[in-house]
Amino acid sequence: MTRDLAVTGVRLTPVLVADPPLLNTQGLHQPYTPRLIVEVETAGGATGVGETYGDTRYLELARPMADELIGRQVSDVNALHALDVAVDASRVDGAVGGGGLRGAQTADKLRLSVVSAFEVACLDALGKALGLPVHALLGGKVRDAVEYSGYLFYKRARHPDGVPAEPERWGAALDPAGVVAQAKAFQERYGFTSFKLKGGVFPPDEEIAAVRALAEAFPGCPLRLDPNGAWSVETAVRVAEELGDVLEYLEDPALGTPAMAEVAARLKGAAGGDGRRNALPLATNMCVTSFAEIEEAFTRGAVQVVLADHHYWGGLRSTQHLAALCAAFGVGVSMHSNTHLGVSLAAMTHVAATVPNLRHACDTHYPWQAEDVLTERLAFDGGRIAVSDAPGLGVALDRAELARLHRRWAEDDGAFRDRDDAAAMRVAAPGWTAPAVPRW
Amino acid sequence: MTRDLAVTGVRLTPVLVADPPLLNTQGLHQPYTPRLIVEVETAGGATGVGETYGDTRYLELARPMADELIGRQVSDVNALHALDVAVDASRVDGAVGGGGLRGAQTADKLRLSVVSAFEVACLDALGKALGLPVHALLGGKVRDAVEYSGYLFYKRARHPDGVPAEPERWGAALDPAGVVAQAKAFQERYGFTSFKLKGGVFPPDEEIAAVRALAEAFPGCPLRLDPNGAWSVETAVRVAEELGDVLEYLEDPALGTPAMAEVAARLKGAAGGDGRRNALPLATNMCVTSFAEIEEAFTRGAVQVVLADHHYWGGLRSTQHLAALCAAFGVGVSMHSNTHLGVSLAAMTHVAATVPNLRHACDTHYPWQAEDVLTERLAFDGGRIAVSDAPGLGVALDRAELARLHRRWAEDDGAFRDRDDAAAMRVAAPGWTAPAVPRW
Repeated sequence: MTRDLAVTGVRLTPVLVADPPLLNTQGLHQPYTPRLIVEVETAGGATGVGETYGDTRYLELARPMADELIGRQVSDVNALHALDVAVDASRVDGAVGGGGLRGAQTADKLRLSVVSAFEVACLDALGKALGLPVHALLGGKVRDAVEYSGYLFYKRARHPDGVPAEPERWGAALDPAGVVAQAKAFQERYGFTSFKLKGGVFPPDEEIAAVRALAEAFPGCPLRLDPNGAWSVETAVRVAEELGDVLEYLEDPALGTPAMAEVAARLKGAAGGDGRRNALPLATNMCVTSFAEIEEAFTRGAVQVVLADHHYWGGLRSTQHLAALCAAFGVGVSMHSNTHLGVSLAAMTHVAATVPNLRHACDTHYPWQAEDVLTERLAFDGGRIAVSDAPGLGVALDRAELARLHRRWAEDDGAFRDRDDAAAMRVAAPGWTAPAVPRW
Repeated sequence: MTRDLAVTGVRLTPVLVADPPLLNTQGLHQPYTPRLIVEVETAGGATGVGETYGDTRYLELARPMADELIGRQVSDVNALHALDVAVDASRVDGAVGGGGLRGAQTADKLRLSVVSAFEVACLDALGKALGLPVHALLGGKVRDAVEYSGYLFYKRARHPDGVPAEPERWGAALDPAGVVAQAKAFQERYGFTSFKLKGGVFPPDEEIAAVRALAEAFPGCPLRLDPNGAWSVETAVRVAEELGDVLEYLEDPALGTPAMAEVAARLKGAAGGDGRRNALPLATNMCVTSFAEIEEAFTRGAVQVVLADHHYWGGLRSTQHLAALCAAFGVGVSMHSNTHLGVSLAAMTHVAATVPNLRHACDTHYPWQAEDVLTERLAFDGGRIAVSDAPGLGVALDRAELARLHRRWAEDDGAFRDRDDAAAMRVAAPGWTAPAVPRW
C-alpha cells in the first residue's frame, strides 16, 4: 500500500478571485486577490488539494517545493517542514505581508505558508486513499460542527471606477447603521450568532458606536473588534473600557507584543487584582503568528486568545500543536482568516473539529468570496459548518471554474498578482498612503 | 471502511514482569513489577496493543475505560482524553506514584497514564487496518532509527532472600568499577554510545566518582546523572560544577520546580552572562510531568530538557504536542522510561521518530527486562532501534508468554501488584524507610 501513497505529480494553479471592496486600516481590498491551489496525485491514483496565499513570493517558493515532493509519501507530512528549499530573503526583508495584516513577514513564515498547502493536499490525498476524513488523520473530531463568526467589514458600495469588478451583493457599510444592516443580512443568510467587526478604518469613537449598535441589535451575541494594531496603548485601553461589557475579546488593538502587554497589564490593573472581575481578553493574529513569537507574548501576558491560522503556522498538525501549547498556558484559541476559498475553509473546519480547547467561533472571509473552486460551496447552518466524514477534505474541485480563475491570473498584467491594499485605496483616493501606526 | 474501524472488543491483561534488584533513592526494585497490556479489536478484525503501568489504581480505571471504548472508532484517539470515566481521588490524594519517581501523582495524570495505553492500542489497530506504520499516523518519521541511552543502575547481585527471583544476568554494581563494568557490558551487547546513571543511591561524592570513571572509560560519550531529586540545592550546584565538563545534562538534581529553578539560576550565574560558556542543562521527568506544570517551570527557567513519557503525558499525539511546546520555548526534549516491555518501547520508537527536535538519546529500561510479551524482542543496533515500517507498531504478542506473566499476576497474593520500592528495600534491610528529601 505505501508505494501507492508516493506522490507522482503536483499541480500548482495560481488564481485571481473576486474580492469585494472591504476596508481595513491599511487600505482597501483590491477587486481580485491571488490564491494558490495545490494539487497532488499519488501512484495509487488518489488526488488531494490544498490552498494558500497566491502572491508571487509564495508561488516562487511553491515551484521548487513541488519538485521536492515527487516520490515522497503523502503520509510524510512532518518532513515537509524540513524540505530543502531556499527562501529568498529579499522577499521578506522588511516586507510586511498582506498590507501588514498577517504580522511580521519572516522567511520561516513564508516557507510555512507554502508548506501548509502541501500538507493539506497530502492529507486530503491520504484520506481519500484510506477512506478516512482528514479529521481522522488528525486524531479524530471532538465536535460534529464548527462554529464561525460573522466577519463584518466597513466597505464601499463598489470598487473604484476604472478597475474591473464582479457583481456586488452587499452594498456599502460605512457607519453603525450600515454595519448592523450587514450583520443582519449575514445572520439571515448564514445564521451567525457571533460577529467580528474589522476596525481601524474610522476614528475609534465611530467604531465604538458601531459595536454598541451591534450589541443593541444582537443582545447577548459575542462581539469582537479588530483594528489590526491601529491604536495607541491609550486608545486601546479607552476602547476596551468603553466596550468591555459587550466584547468577547478585543483583537490586536495595538501593534506588537510590548504594546499589547502594556494594554493587557492596564486592563488587568483596572479590573482589580481580586479576581472578581476579569479583564477584557486581548486576541491576536499579528503579534503571535509563529512559534518563535510565543514565549515573549505568553510570559508577558500580552495575549489571552491566539487566533490560529493553519496557513502561516505551517499546516493542520502545527495548528494542533499550537492549540495544545495555548491550553498549557491557559491562553484561549480561536481561528484567524484571510481571504480564502472553500479548500481552506474545509481544512480549517477539519482541524478546528479536532481541537478540544477551541471555545470561540472561528473567523472566515468565506461569505465575501462569491467565487470558489469547488463543485459545491460549503454551507453554514446556524453559523456552523458540519464536519465532513467523507474521505479527505470532502470537497471536489470544479475544474472549469479553476481554469477560469487561473485564466484571470494568467491574463493579469501584474496589477493584482500581489495583494496591495494601499494600491487599491490609491485608486479610490489618489495620493493615499497607508497610515503610520498607531493611527489613533 | 469506517464501520470496520469500530472497537468491538477490549482485553485487559495485567502481568507481573521480572525486574532486577535495581537501586534508586526511594529503595529497590521489587522482583516483579506490574504492567497492563491493553488489546483492542475492531469490527474489521484488526487488533492493536498498548501498554501502561499495571498498579491496582491503573487497573481500576482501565476497566470502565475499556467499556467506554466499545463502538468508538480506533481513529478517534483525541476523544479518549474526554472519556467519561471518574477517577477515584483517594487513589492519588497525597500518594506519590512509583516510589516518588514519576513526579506528583494527580487524578489527571493517572487518567492520562491509562488513556495512553488505549491510544497506542487504537493506533496500532488503525495502522494494521490501513497498512500504515504508527509513525505514519503521526505525520511520518523524520529519522529511520531512534537512539537510546544505556541506562545504568546501581544494583545488588540478587534480590533479598525469601522472595522469588528470576535468573539474574548482570551481577552487582555498587561502586565506580561496577558501574563501568555494567556500561561496558551494555555497550558490548547493545552498542549504546551514551549512558545515564540512576543516582541518588549513594552519597554524592561516590556518584561523582562513578561518573568520572564512566567519562574516563568512554571518552566523549554523552553522560547523564539522575538522583531523582535527592539533593539539596547546594549539593546539586556542587555536583553540577564538579561534573559540568562531562555531563550532557543533569537530571532532577533537586525536587520540585522552585528548587530546580534555583539550581538553574545559580549554574547560569556561575557560567557568566556573556554567553561564552553555557551552564549545564537541567533535565526533568519529575517537576514537569504534565501540561499543567509547564508554565511555571518554563517561565522560571527551571529546566532545559524535558523527558517526555507518552504514558503519563496521555499518549503519542500528546507527546508530539509537548515536543512542539518545548521547541517554542527553546527547551530540549528527551524521553523518559519507566520499567516497560516491548510494546511501549515500540510506541516510544514510533513517536520519537516523528519528533524533529529530539536531539538527545532516549532512556529505556528495556535491557533490564529479560521477559517480554512479544514474539520477537526489539533489537538495539549501535544503541539504536530501527523505526518499523510494518503496519501498526510492528510487533506481535506472544500469547503463551502473556498468559504466563498474567498467571503470575493472578497468583500473586498482593505482594507485587503495586510497585513499592521501599517495601523491597525493607526485605533487604529490615526497618528501612524511604529517606526524606533532600537526602543529601
